Amino acid sequence: MRNIDEDTITHAVLAAMSKCRDDRLLTVMTSLVRHLHSFAREVTLTEEEWAHAISFLTDVGHITDERRQEFVLLSDTLGLSMLVTTQNNRKPAECTEATVLGPFFVKGAPEYKNGDDMSNGAKGRPCFVSGQVRGLFGEPLADAEIEVWQSDENGFYDVQYADPLEQGGEFQARGRLSTLPDGRFHFRSILPEAYPIPHDGPVGRMLDALGRHPWRPAHLHFWIKAPGYEPLITHVFRNGDKYLDSDAVFGVRSSLVVDWIEHPPGVAPDGVTVTTPFFTLDYDFVLNPAEERQ
Amino acid sequence: MRNIDEDTITHAVLAAMSKCRDDRLLTVMTSLVRHLHSFAREVTLTEEEWAHAISFLTDVGHITDERRQEFVLLSDTLGLSMLVTTQNNRKPAECTEATVLGPFFVKGAPEYKNGDDMSNGAKGRPCFVSGQVRGLFGEPLADAEIEVWQSDENGFYDVQYADPLEQGGEFQARGRLSTLPDGRFHFRSILPEAYPIPHDGPVGRMLDALGRHPWRPAHLHFWIKAPGYEPLITHVFRNGDKYLDSDAVFGVRSSLVVDWIEHPPGVAPDGVTVTTPFFTLDYDFVLNPAEERQ
Ligand SMILES: [Fe+2]
Ligand SMILES: [Fe+2]
Repeated sequence: MRNIDEDTITHAVLAAMSKCRDDRLLTVMTSLVRHLHSFAREVTLTEEEWAHAISFLTDVGHITDERRQEFVLLSDTLGLSMLVTTQNNRKPAECTEATVLGPFFVKGAPEYKNGDDMSNGAKGRPCFVSGQVRGLFGEPLADAEIEVWQSDENGFYDVQYADPLEQGGEFQARGRLSTLPDGRFHFRSILPEAYPIPHDGPVGRMLDALGRHPWRPAHLHFWIKAPGYEPLITHVFRNGDKYLDSDAVFGVRSSLVVDWIEHPPGVAPDGVTVTTPFFTLDYDFVLNPAEERQ
Repeated sequence: MRNIDEDTITHAVLAAMSKCRDDRLLTVMTSLVRHLHSFAREVTLTEEEWAHAISFLTDVGHITDERRQEFVLLSDTLGLSMLVTTQNNRKPAECTEATVLGPFFVKGAPEYKNGDDMSNGAKGRPCFVSGQVRGLFGEPLADAEIEVWQSDENGFYDVQYADPLEQGGEFQARGRLSTLPDGRFHFRSILPEAYPIPHDGPVGRMLDALGRHPWRPAHLHFWIKAPGYEPLITHVFRNGDKYLDSDAVFGVRSSLVVDWIEHPPGVAPDGVTVTTPFFTLDYDFVLNPAEERQ
């Protein structure tokens, strides 16, 4: 400890943790320190670059608040979120794949009944969504809880507006509903549009410096829970979107890319006459049985 | 990009950066992404642990302000700062070794003349510091700029008090002076004491969870600049301090550990009579010639 240099520093840091009583924490921090130091050695990180990194992280911290989570954006854009999602959601190929949660989920979304319009005034082309929730062996899951959230025609989520409650006192284009006895669900909403992740902060500057764009292909977010099954957090993507091959947060999986059908004005699936063109999406979700311990 | 999984994600992130025009940034970010992903894979980082990390970094960001730099503390306590310092300050063995800057340097410290009392009212046992600044080949360096900062008898830097200017309208126990024509310098101050790094925030919680203490052995900070030489940022440590072998930020190098001599009340080096015991420190600094490009 009195002769620390660029070679001995890693051992010194690991030795300092030797009294840690939490085995898992020790495992995680040992690996973190080793990789952090290997990175700094591999590129011979300079003092100016280190200072730049401190300043960057400070900016990320200062723009983060209850609505804006720049650390999640940073993790998303560096692919860490998708890596963590995939390695924690290994399941049989028959099950619906998971993808990232993203920064726009918020608690407290309103409850709806099947057939309701979840857009709640959010602007966009009408879209009618239906499907079934099943278990791995084909069993329909009644009373499964489905939570949906999405962007509007401007590519914004309600929480990105100055005040989400400003838009009429309620959340828009997000909500919860339950599956019917046959596992099926259906609701009306609007067509989600491609959108850039918030890029007026340090993560946006990083993307720009790396020659990357901030866009995500259009998608609906789903979070599905049923007792006895692993929860599923995923998206359904619109086939044809030009950003499917360059999602800024690396969330696309081909099994989640689906054709959304455009229809001329006429009678919609719920029997209502729609005077503008509208879209339909039909997609089934398959959940993995939970392990015994859960 | 449409079939991202835990194996292909790293390649996908690196491919997304392929339009980056800054070669050095690309090198640094490629290594960072590889090591970040390797870490997450190696420990099979869970979603709960990821969420905990996001929350930890958010706390680090929110406690950081102009006076408190928790990201620097995090880098310091994980040994990253010392690693970056050492690998950027390789120099001949005859030169004084560098160590970390630490979070308590602030710009705008007052200027003093040789012989002045830099404590400026900060409390502690009197200490008289002297030495010479030389170049690698023994040449005395006149007019070298020396900046000093240190803790007081409570182990606090002036900037850690509610308002540094509250303590009498001026910075305390920090200042700048220049070497005399023979390269020598001397000033009066107070004895620095061992101190814990600020540990009432997330970094303190991390140290606690790792079974580590937050203490640093007593030291004086020096930042020395002379035209034509590499700047030197270093500490001089007090020999005998009980934390020399467990510095929370890994900054100790044996060549920087020095005997500080305690004297009974009497006539101090500057000719003034001191009515309490006092200390003297004599230490010479040797600077490395700057490379041509600098
Ligand atoms: Fe989204
Ligand atoms: Fe210090």
